[in-house]
Amino acid sequence: MAALPLSPDAEDLLRRPNPAVITTLRGDGQPVSVATWYLFEMNQILVNMDHSRKRLAHLRNDPRVSLTALAEGDWYTHVSVQGSVVEMVDDIGLADIDRLARHYTGKPYRNRERARVSAWIEIESWHGWGAAATS
Amino acid sequence: MAALPLSPDAEDLLRRPNPAVITTLRGDGQPVSVATWYLFEMNQILVNMDHSRKRLAHLRNDPRVSLTALAEGDWYTHVSVQGSVVEMVDDIGLADIDRLARHYTGKPYRNRERARVSAWIEIESWHGWGAAATS
Repeated sequence: MAALPLSPDAEDLLRRPNPAVITTLRGDGQPVSVATWYLFEMNQILVNMDHSRKRLAHLRNDPRVSLTALAEGDWYTHVSVQGSVVEMVDDIGLADIDRLARHYTGKPYRNRERARVSAWIEIESWHGWGAAATS
Repeated sequence: MAALPLSPDAEDLLRRPNPAVITTLRGDGQPVSVATWYLFEMNQILVNMDHSRKRLAHLRNDPRVSLTALAEGDWYTHVSVQGSVVEMVDDIGLADIDRLARHYTGKPYRNRERARVSAWIEIESWHGWGAAATS
C-alpha cells in the first residue's frame, strides 16, 4: 500500500469510466464484493446504491471499503483504494446517480422511481499495477 | 446472497477467463482488493500468488475472501462468490500458475524464477447479476 497522494497515473485511471468492484464487510466481517459505477471527485470516491441494498447496512455497521478500478481493455493495469465511507446522503433528485450514469453511458439514469443513497469514500491508502504502478 | 449450488449461468461465467477482483482482510479487518486470475475447478476457486505477497499473510490470519468475476465486454453481468480459503499449497513446478496462464493467455507463465503459492477457495454463498442473475 502506498501513502497519499495518488500518482498522476493513478488519478488518470480513476477519472475514466472503468469497470470497478467495491467490497464492504458483512456484520460478521465476511467481505462481500460487487461490480459498481464510481466517480473520483474532490479526491474522494463517490458510489451510489438503491436504498434497499444490503450494502448500506454493511456500511452503517462498518464503513471500511476497498475499491478496485480496472483499466478498460488492459485489466492488469488497475488501481485499488482502501478507505472508509465518511458520508452517506440521500440522492435528492437523483443528481448523483445521473452524474454517474452520464459518466458511464452518456445518458441520465433510467429508473426514476426508486430512492437512492450516495456514499463518499475517503481514500486512506492505494496501490497501482501495470501502467498505473505504484512508484 | 444465494445458497449453493451455483446456477448453470453462473458456472458458465466462472469458467471463462474473466477479469476478476479478489478481496482479502488485513490484520485489522480492513478489506483489500486486487485484480486476479482465477480458475473454477471442482466447485472451488483456485488463485495463485507470488510467495512474497502480503495477501498470503492476510489469508493465514483470516481465510475469508470475496471474489467478483466480470463478464468480458458486459461487466454489469457478473458473479460474486464469498467463502474461505480451505487449502494453501506451494505451487510445485508452477503447475497451477501455468494452468491459469494458459487459461488467460494461451501460454505457460513467463516468470520461472519466483516461488508461488496456490489457494483453494470453498464457496459458501454467491450472487449473480445481468445475464448471470441469481434466480
